[in-house]
Amino acid sequence: MILLSRRATFSAAHYYWNPSWSEEKNREVFGRCANRNGHGHNYTLEVTLSGEPDAVTGFVVDLKWLRDVMEREVLEAWDHRHLNLEAPEFGKTSPTTENLAIAAWRRLEPAVTAAGGARLSRVRIYETPEIFAEYRGEA
Amino acid sequence: MILLSRRATFSAAHYYWNPSWSEEKNREVFGRCANRNGHGHNYTLEVTLSGEPDAVTGFVVDLKWLRDVMEREVLEAWDHRHLNLEAPEFGKTSPTTENLAIAAWRRLEPAVTAAGGARLSRVRIYETPEIFAEYRGEA
Amino acid sequence: MILLSRRATFSAAHYYWNPSWSEEKNREVFGRCANRNGHGHNYTLEVTLSGEPDAVTGFVVDLKWLRDVMEREVLEAWDHRHLNLEAPEFGKTSPTTENLAIAAWRRLEPAVTAAGGARLSRVRIYETPEIFAEYRGEA
Amino acid sequence: MILLSRRATFSAAHYYWNPSWSEEKNREVFGRCANRNGHGHNYTLEVTLSGEPDAVTGFVVDLKWLRDVMEREVLEAWDHRHLNLEAPEFGKTSPTTENLAIAAWRRLEPAVTAAGGARLSRVRIYETPEIFAEYRGEA
Amino acid sequence: MILLSRRATFSAAHYYWNPSWSEEKNREVFGRCANRNGHGHNYTLEVTLSGEPDAVTGFVVDLKWLRDVMEREVLEAWDHRHLNLEAPEFGKTSPTTENLAIAAWRRLEPAVTAAGGARLSRVRIYETPEIFAEYRGEA
Amino acid sequence: MILLSRRATFSAAHYYWNPSWSEEKNREVFGRCANRNGHGHNYTLEVTLSGEPDAVTGFVVDLKWLRDVMEREVLEAWDHRHLNLEAPEFGKTSPTTENLAIAAWRRLEPAVTAAGGARLSRVRIYETPEIFAEYRGEA
Repeated sequence: MILLSRRATFSAAHYYWNPSWSEEKNREVFGRCANRNGHGHNYTLEVTLSGEPDAVTGFVVDLKWLRDVMEREVLEAWDHRHLNLEAPEFGKTSPTTENLAIAAWRRLEPAVTAAGGARLSRVRIYETPEIFAEYRGEA
Repeated sequence: MILLSRRATFSAAHYYWNPSWSEEKNREVFGRCANRNGHGHNYTLEVTLSGEPDAVTGFVVDLKWLRDVMEREVLEAWDHRHLNLEAPEFGKTSPTTENLAIAAWRRLEPAVTAAGGARLSRVRIYETPEIFAEYRGEA
Repeated sequence: MILLSRRATFSAAHYYWNPSWSEEKNREVFGRCANRNGHGHNYTLEVTLSGEPDAVTGFVVDLKWLRDVMEREVLEAWDHRHLNLEAPEFGKTSPTTENLAIAAWRRLEPAVTAAGGARLSRVRIYETPEIFAEYRGEA
Repeated sequence: MILLSRRATFSAAHYYWNPSWSEEKNREVFGRCANRNGHGHNYTLEVTLSGEPDAVTGFVVDLKWLRDVMEREVLEAWDHRHLNLEAPEFGKTSPTTENLAIAAWRRLEPAVTAAGGARLSRVRIYETPEIFAEYRGEA
Repeated sequence: MILLSRRATFSAAHYYWNPSWSEEKNREVFGRCANRNGHGHNYTLEVTLSGEPDAVTGFVVDLKWLRDVMEREVLEAWDHRHLNLEAPEFGKTSPTTENLAIAAWRRLEPAVTAAGGARLSRVRIYETPEIFAEYRGEA
Repeated sequence: MILLSRRATFSAAHYYWNPSWSEEKNREVFGRCANRNGHGHNYTLEVTLSGEPDAVTGFVVDLKWLRDVMEREVLEAWDHRHLNLEAPEFGKTSPTTENLAIAAWRRLEPAVTAAGGARLSRVRIYETPEIFAEYRGEA
């Protein structure tokens, strides 16, 4: 079994805010991220699939296909968007790095499974080069 | 003469939009950047000073002082902010990489000049690792 | 379950030397690292925690808290220090990348466990971008 | 148990082509990689060993030894080579990132096992910073 | 005046060989690069334009336009190509990093000049992260 | 005219200390760098030469020769060394990034000039990825 990974970047705005808390409480918990005008990041999405290389092509999956799946399932919805205001999964859920990793998994997993041959093994989201979250699906 | 440079990063939201144009024209010129909900970036600010190393310390300037100047003059105003809505220089001026480089120069130059000894030589803003603008002041 | 990681850098000096060996044997085994004046590195500490995102905040842990734990438990003891001479765990033990990873784990694990909610999953130390060690605790 | 990793880079040419397919079919599946004049990459080989640090040296293995093994077993055969034409494992097998990871494992595993003490844990090949494959041996 | 830069990557094969020299002499001068099967690199093309930001858009040039110029003038000819065999400028001239920088300048300069407004200021080619050449045109 | 650059890394220890000042004054000016046990960095030396590509080889200079000059003139003296205690130029002069850039220039310039053909154009020293100094010789 081989793990094959591909990265792509996207730029998005977000903020952290809990409407059931006071301004003061939001500032205390979320710090500068509580600014509701939003700030943003150059995110990196790293997707890892597991499978066997095809005997003829030597590919676990076609990397052009994987790029298109990442573009269609994740980047079209999140790139150059305000995640709190435009991404459907973040109406109530906070767009933290952790939740982005889970949401990207849920966006990608059906397309990878439907294609057959390889399985989604893990999804990483880097918010900055220093901070990243990883999800491997339900155990 | 020595050039001494320091980098710092900040995260901010922005969008491109000309209110005197139609939605269609804005989309045509600015593409995905015309989304007024905003998107964002991990920007890098790179500041270069020129001067002679002090005979005793070996410093052109104290790098802790330079970090504090960059923090106070630029990052406090721009980090975790929406540049169109919160940075005073971008009410009418578009927060492009080019204009950020000019604005950062104007924020930093008085503090560097007032301190004496070294001169501001150039300012770079990286919007992503692939795109950056550089300003060296009025000729 | 989500894995959440944060990186921080520190600069330290070290050398490799076994006092029960001859100078010649030390040079043979440790090469240029056997210079007892010391040399140094910009190390990267990468800490990974595992847990469930909090339903309200969306955080596995607060990343500001994690930064403070890394600063207080590891960087205060190792940053801008000579590891052989100043870090208590390296009086007799050699400050190799491997042993730094184990020692960082032992410094971080009690604070993470005491906080509850998340568990320390792994610790990586990069000595250079080309060389790194990873520890996941006692099996 | 500790995981110790080392990276090295090599530059090589390759192309993708299946002689039992038409030119058209090759272009359709392999895109620009089907150019039989070849193109090339700066590859990164990342090798991870697992073991216990030696009580005296603090080393899982001597990193100079590991560098020499990587040089002798992999880089001498692949660096500055055309993989399709010169690497013995890619006469019929396609030199994809996936197959390079498997082939590097097979080249390295006997030397690591023969040395004793540490085991080969995983091999990664980065074709670009955005694309990489990982192999951990037969389950 | 502002300098605006954009990077793009391409993968290509090349070798160094002087047909008027013996095999021995070629090996002596060009080392491992003299292998006529070719090897390859992930090159980075970095293009810098100088000009004034437009008062309305804030752009020195539209970065989407610059990306398209780089794609059309340079990457279409060089990406996934064997430079010695397929790039017209390297039939007799050796595809060294230096000569790639000059050739990229000559490919880009007419398109930038024809567009008006901004001037080509410099072109950099990175063969690896450690080796790069820069050309600024005829003095 | 072409600028050709090459980078190399070295690991060294250093500290900042002025013996004519009190401990308190040293701590105030140099902060954590005043620890006389030393700390260290993975430095990057970046050397840029200017010249014309040779009509036959396409080289401004042979990059293997440049690597050897950098190794012989700079890295042999500084790599895996304590700069305050072992580098002859830093007995009295402080090994700041600025002074390292000047000292590297003085080490490299005679060898480059003696070889003929190309001139030393600039030397950069990166102390970390965030801090670097550049020297271009006496005006």
